[in-house]
This record gives sequence, C-alpha cells and structure tokens, in this order.
Amino acid sequence: MRIEFYDTTLRDGAQAAGISYSLADKKQIFSLLSSIGIDLVEGGDPASNPKDAEFFSECVSPRLAAFGSTCRKNTAAECDEGLNKLIATGAQTVCIFGKASPRHVSEVLGVSEEENLGMISRSVRFLSSHGRRVIFDAEHFYDGADEDMAYAMRCLECAREAGADTLVLCDTNGGTFPDKAYKLTKAVVEAFPEQKIGVHFHNDAGTAVASSLAGVSAGARHVQGTFLGFGERCGNANLSTIMADLMLKSGCERTADLKAFTRTAHAVAEISNIKLDPAMPYVGTAAFAHKAGMHSDAVLKDPRTFEHVSPEEVGNRDSILLSEVAGRSAVAKKLEHLFPSLDKSDPKVKQILDMVKRMEMKGYQFEGADGSFVMLAERVMNAFKPSFELEHYCIKAVKPDGVNAAEVAIRVKGEVTSVTETGNGPVNALDKALRAALAKHFPQIEEVALIDYKVRVVDPSAATGAMVRVLITSSDKRDTWTTVGVSTDIIEASWSALTDSFEYKLTGRGNVV
Amino acid sequence: MRIEFYDTTLRDGAQAAGISYSLADKKQIFSLLSSIGIDLVEGGDPASNPKDAEFFSECVSPRLAAFGSTCRKNTAAECDEGLNKLIATGAQTVCIFGKASPRHVSEVLGVSEEENLGMISRSVRFLSSHGRRVIFDAEHFYDGADEDMAYAMRCLECAREAGADTLVLCDTNGGTFPDKAYKLTKAVVEAFPEQKIGVHFHNDAGTAVASSLAGVSAGARHVQGTFLGFGERCGNANLSTIMADLMLKSGCERTADLKAFTRTAHAVAEISNIKLDPAMPYVGTAAFAHKAGMHSDAVLKDPRTFEHVSPEEVGNRDSILLSEVAGRSAVAKKLEHLFPSLDKSDPKVKQILDMVKRMEMKGYQFEGADGSFVMLAERVMNAFKPSFELEHYCIKAVKPDGVNAAEVAIRVKGEVTSVTETGNGPVNALDKALRAALAKHFPQIEEVALIDYKVRVVDPSAATGAMVRVLITSSDKRDTWTTVGVSTDIIEASWSALTDSFEYKLTGRGNVV
Repeated sequence: MRIEFYDTTLRDGAQAAGISYSLADKKQIFSLLSSIGIDLVEGGDPASNPKDAEFFSECVSPRLAAFGSTCRKNTAAECDEGLNKLIATGAQTVCIFGKASPRHVSEVLGVSEEENLGMISRSVRFLSSHGRRVIFDAEHFYDGADEDMAYAMRCLECAREAGADTLVLCDTNGGTFPDKAYKLTKAVVEAFPEQKIGVHFHNDAGTAVASSLAGVSAGARHVQGTFLGFGERCGNANLSTIMADLMLKSGCERTADLKAFTRTAHAVAEISNIKLDPAMPYVGTAAFAHKAGMHSDAVLKDPRTFEHVSPEEVGNRDSILLSEVAGRSAVAKKLEHLFPSLDKSDPKVKQILDMVKRMEMKGYQFEGADGSFVMLAERVMNAFKPSFELEHYCIKAVKPDGVNAAEVAIRVKGEVTSVTETGNGPVNALDKALRAALAKHFPQIEEVALIDYKVRVVDPSAATGAMVRVLITSSDKRDTWTTVGVSTDIIEASWSALTDSFEYKLTGRGNVV
Repeated sequence: MRIEFYDTTLRDGAQAAGISYSLADKKQIFSLLSSIGIDLVEGGDPASNPKDAEFFSECVSPRLAAFGSTCRKNTAAECDEGLNKLIATGAQTVCIFGKASPRHVSEVLGVSEEENLGMISRSVRFLSSHGRRVIFDAEHFYDGADEDMAYAMRCLECAREAGADTLVLCDTNGGTFPDKAYKLTKAVVEAFPEQKIGVHFHNDAGTAVASSLAGVSAGARHVQGTFLGFGERCGNANLSTIMADLMLKSGCERTADLKAFTRTAHAVAEISNIKLDPAMPYVGTAAFAHKAGMHSDAVLKDPRTFEHVSPEEVGNRDSILLSEVAGRSAVAKKLEHLFPSLDKSDPKVKQILDMVKRMEMKGYQFEGADGSFVMLAERVMNAFKPSFELEHYCIKAVKPDGVNAAEVAIRVKGEVTSVTETGNGPVNALDKALRAALAKHFPQIEEVALIDYKVRVVDPSAATGAMVRVLITSSDKRDTWTTVGVSTDIIEASWSALTDSFEYKLTGRGNVV
C-alpha cells in the first residue's frame, strides 16, 4: 500500500505558540523534509505575508506545494488575488481549503450554501485550468458531516467535478475520535471510488495519530500533518509517528528514509527553537530509554522484550538512563566504545556509577551530557590528566556603562597565561577569554564552535538563589558533544561546562565515540 | 457509564527521563490527584526502595493503591518479601503484575509456563486472603495474546480464580494499535463477563489515548495511566486527556472535578520539574490558543467555531496569542479586565500592538509573561510612572574566592539609595540588593517571593553570545505574575525582568487582573 504524505510544518506548524520561522528557517526545513522523502511539503500561503511569497520565489521543487483558500465571495476566480498568487508561485501542486460545514458557511463566511459551492467550483476549476494539481482541503469536514452529511458531500462533489485531484477531509477543531474518523472516511471513499481521498487531523482530543491511521484503514491514501506534530492549539497529526507506524508496523510502502528520521527531527526542532519532546514516539531522545533496573537489564539481554520496534530503524538508539536506579551493566554498555575491554564486574564501573549518583544528587544530569560523562569516566579510569588549571577568573559587569569584562588566568605546564576579554554578557566574556588563553597552547581549540547554550533552573522554588544547570553543546565539524555544569552561580556553572567541553576536545575522544 | 481511573504517576511516571520524586513531592502529587477525584492513585512499590516504603507509612487513604509483583519463582507467597511488604503498606487496594507472554516467561523470568501460572495464583490468593482488593496487571498481554492467546487467557483465568477483583490488560511495549486493542479487549470482556476488565497502554506508537478509548468501547471499565502521560520511553496513556475525552465527549459519568484539571496539571508538572507541554490536550497553556488572524477573529465571535469543547469545562481558557499575526481585537480582549472602557478602535490599542510586535522582533515573548504585558500596556496608556530609577549597578564575581557581590543604587523621588549584597551567584546578589534598596521605600516589596526563574536562549546558534530571555515568576500569595527581560547579557535581562516584577507589584494591578 502506497500512502502519500503531505507536510504542513511551514504553514499549520507555524501557527503553534512560540514558533516563528524566518525565510532561512523555512528553506532549511523544506530542504530537510523533502530530502527524506516526504512526498509534498507545503511552503506557506503566498497571499498571507511577504515572507511566504519570497520563499516561493526562491524555492523550486516537484515536492513543493502552495496553500491558499477558495476565492472571495461573489468574486470571479480570475480576479481573485489569492488564487493568482497561488499560480504565480510556480508550484505544480496547490492546496486550497474551502468550507464543508453549513454553520461555518453561514456564520463565519456569511454566504449562502449555494455561493459556497460556487466558490469551491470556480476556484478549483481556475487552478486546474492552469495545469496545477489541485488538493482540496474540506475544512471542518467531520463536524460538518455531523450537521449535514449531504451538504458536506456536495462540497466534495463540487471540488471533484471541477477537477480536484485529491479530496482531503479535515478535522479542523481536532475533536473527532478515531471511530468516527473511520466511519466518515469510509463513507467518502465509497462515494468517490475513483478519487484519491486524504485526511488532516488535529490533536485536541489526543487522537490525531490514531485517527489518521483509522483514515488509512478506511481507504484514505493521502495523509496531511506536521513532521513533529507542531500546530495551533494542541498541534497537528504527527507525521513522523504516523509514517513510522504505517511503514514499520502496517506494511505500507517505505517511501521515506526512516533511518534519517531522528536526525531530521532534532534538526527541525532546533530550527524551530522548540525543545523536542524527549518522549516523542520513535524520534525522541527518550523514546527508547530504559530506567527501571529490571527493564534495562532485560533490554540489554534482548531489546525486543521492552521495545516494539528496533531504534535503528528510525536512526535512534537505545539509551540506558544513568540514574539512581541504573546498574553496572548500563554503565559498562555506555562505555563500551571508549573502553572495549571494560567488564561490568570491574570495580571502576562501580566507582563511575557511584560518582554519577553522587553528582546527580547535586543536580547534574548525564542523560543529555555525553561529553561530561566521558570526562567523568576518563577521570575515574585514570586515563585523564587535565590540560590546564584555573588560576583565577574575575568578572565585572557595570550598568549603565554596559561593560562586561572577564579576566581569565590559566596554568598550562607550569606557565600562567592571562587574558582579558569583553563580551555581550559575562558568560560570553568568560568564554572568549578562556578560549584565547587556551588557543595560545592548543591551536585546535580554534576549531571548536559552541552551537548551543542552555540554562535550566534545577530547583525553581529557590528562584534566583536556585541551582542552575548549564548545558553547552560544542562541535568541531567531525563531532558534536554536550557538557554540563551545575552551581548556584550561573557563571561558575558555565565555567564548569566550558572547561569540560574544551578538555573533551583536547582528549581527542571525539574520534572514538 | 462509570469508568474507574487509576493513576500511576508516582510509579510508572517516575520512570520517565528527568523525573525523580522526593518523599514530599510524592505526598503533594498524591494529595492533588486524589482530591480531584482520580479513583485510585498508586503510591509506589514498597519493596523497590525505602522512599516508597516511607511514603506508605505516612499516607492513609481509601484512594491509595500499592504496587508490586507476583512472588518470586518457587517461593511460597507467605514467605515472599515483596508480597508481605504490600500487605504491610495497609493500602486496601493492591496491584500486582505478572507475565502473560510465554516468551517473557521463558526468556526473562526463566520459569516454566506452569510455574508462572502458579506464581500468579499463589500471589493473588495470598493478597485476597488478607482482605485486599487485588488488581492484576497482565504484563505484555497484547503481545502475549498475539503469540499464544490461550496461554494469555489462562494467566487471566488463574488470577480471577484466585480472587482478583480486576484484570488489567497491559500493552507494556506500547506498540499496539487501537484496532487490535479493541479486538483483544473485547475478546477478554466476552470471556470474563462477570469481571471488571481494565486497560493499561504506553504511547510508543502515539496511540495510547486512542487505544484506551478503544478499550472502553470494547467494555473495559478501569483505565490506568498517568495524569500528564509521564512514563518510561514515550510515556503512559495520558489520563487527563482520556478522562476529559470520556466525560466531556462520550457521556461517561463525571466522577472527577474536571474544572480543576488545568490547575492540577500545572501543579503536577511543576512538582515533577517538567515543563508542561503547552500543546497538551485540554490542560496545556496553548490548548485553546489561537494565532492565525482569521481563527482568532472567529473565536472571538463564537468560540465553537474553532474549539471542540469549552475551555472553562477543564478550568482552562482561550488565549489569543500576541504575535505578529495578532490583531487589535486580540489586544483589546487581553486588556478588558484592566481597561474596561478600551475599545479596539482606540489608537492606544494600535500603539500597544505595535510595541508588542517591535519587542517580539527583539526576542521578547509576551505569550507567557502577563506581568510584563500589563506593564507595557500601563506605559502606553500613560497611567504609569516608574517608582524608581536605576542609578547604576556593579557586579563582581571572582573565582576561586567564590565572591559574588552586587552594588545597586536606585533613585526614588530624587533620593539615591545604595545597597551592596552578596549572593549565591550574580543574579541572586542583584536580586537581594535591589530588593533591600526598594524595601526601604516600599515595605510591601517584602511580600514578593520569586517562585521561578527561567532562562531561554533565543538564538542558540550564537551560543554564549546569544540573546537570552529571562522569565521570572513572582507571587505575593494573592497573585502570581510572570515578567520577561531580553538581552545578550544574562544579568541585564534578569535586571529587566526583576524591575518589571517589582513595578507590577507596586502598581497594585495584581488585585485587578
């Protein structure tokens, strides 16, 4: 069975609270999603804002779709600005929405039921006559069918008759349950046996993925959603979950590069400036993470015992959470790349585990900080000698002058090097000064770029006196690693994460892990 | 229809990456969940760790359930430490899990199929003979039934025959789709017509809520999950979503205080130190948030147009996101409590909207910072005069001495007050110094407690040189408000959020909003 997948991250996804894409963001996301084999990626609505219009002027791809609405009421399609802009995008596939609910037609649109049908017909016919493939999104279809099934079906029939290639049933308010989704989709599939039928669900009842699967069971062959479920209110149907469900577990044709899913999910979340839900099915960092001692032991023996699919199938991996309930076998497993001969009965393994537990009590967290975990293990295994030592640092921040200065003095092989730098803020000044001092001795430090800096308050109830955890992600193009520092003092926590990051680089471990 | 709901946040939920509950956390969450009418709240496994055992010694409630496993292999139930600890908890309801999959019985447990049945029988009989209500969780039931339906049914039959009150079918690996969940649950309901049947789903395929609903459709009358979906890997079935789906939309008896759900969800997330997913159905801050200009206009006219249920039903509310696509009516709506006579055509509304847009371009975000939005509106409406002005501050941080000192000088009605304080870190020192200086003039500042401090990097790709957004949540017992500051300098961003917070308190607006 071949299902066509249509992603609307760049339009419906951008309706999510907290998301705002720049033109560069849109181009990157388009490129990521189309390169892993999403059949159609919607670029936006050229009529809604200049940014979307500019995107279309720069993007050419057979996977590109442009979104718009039916023409304005009592307007000829030829004279409708929105439809003409759709044609002007050059996208071969256009998706337009029209209303399929009598209540929306009268209350929101304020036109007669007949005129709504006319708007659908005129718009679809105009776009098809320009040689475009037309996808018709029947807004509020499921609610509309509840109110007046005959009218909802007439909307679809008008679109079909005017040349629409695909009829998409939308659950715009997101409240439809899978059983109803199945029943109504099946009725449409049976009424339009020659037509490609699609579904588009929102997650307000927590069932968007299941309703999409139900739609496919009922005969839909086109599924709309957003790759990570981003969208207005509770989000759209999560396309990465649906695609993995259908391709890995339901025998649908594998038309996408599933092994690139996890990497792509992280990249899309990063560009969207949204923390990827660690529990997101298939692609989350915790999707295959095991904590309970008994579960992690069983998974180390046979992953099938507590995993419904293999994480490699989606480019993810098992992780054994290093927490107070983790055991020796979990630690040994995590270190097998670095110290292949290390056995779980080795007393060093116990020492590392105890150190992890002690530091987690203080607010450290190694689940997401592999770089610092490697450094901790290096210290315990005695393979590690620090490349430099702190003599002192001194930070000064004055307002309104706006001065942020850091003096850093480090000792390398007995020699003290001192550098003072100013920065955008105290941490930036500290980073610049340390980096400059180190580069005098270790030129390879210049290759390290800090690509992410996160601060988390560990104990929020203490407010500004709380412990803060700083996570720094660094990259030298070959390798990317994350380090962690914890303190009540954000500068000290940042210092600690920075030094771990630079030490990690200097060990050369990046080529091993 | 009456469904019994069983929450396992304190046990299965605690298996989630990043969650670790203290004894005090467990007591608070137990109290929150039982007070809103969750039928049974699992406290933990008394045999797994001392913290859980201590919890049971302090918690007495008819809603309390204790969790454990069947007795060890080849052990008499009377001699089994775990079962005796379950009895010792005093909980009237005990839930034990046993295996229902032949593969797990042989590969993980390493016993014969007959001995596994014996372990189930002995354990259930022992607990029932002590007058406990026994809930039997059939681990891996759905996968086990696929392997060997007859054996999975025999496990259930053994538990029933030994006195189990409720038989719960568990999808331990979380890969079961709703259609299979329906079919197999229905088969069990038909095979045990006199028995209460329950379901327990995990979300690895993104369908745990839908499978729970399918289980209820098939005749299950007991549903296990976690209130916010926390749990190992991709989480457990989200009980708040399921309960709202069933009680608001499927005609199930309203046995819980749904109007307390949103408040409770925020409290549970806070105690768990997990950011509540803003898109979580019903209870997320964005669950009823509208951004697209057209949608928010329609919702202001008639909320039913884009909402499947009324947010008031679950104690949530509509929100119109103040973003670049928001309109005047959204701003006027947000300000109607403060300035009741303000009309959306007032030029001040346009000024406020323009200011929001300009500041959001700089990295501010007012969606979650109502306190700063009020202050912005106060400034534009000319009702606001600052209570104090900054003369200067000077921060010094030195390591290894560990000194963090802040000197703050402010001007109040022409008089300059200067205070120096030390703190755990530079921001804490700044907060203490500003607070001390203000309190000399405005004693009500002493009532303000800072209850949360969050830092978000707005532009992560610039790493330590990036813009940071600081959100501070303050409370004076009557009111809680959040303020925002943005800068490349974390100290300056914190200063800006702190001053907005104190100014908000001094306006007395907290009694109005």
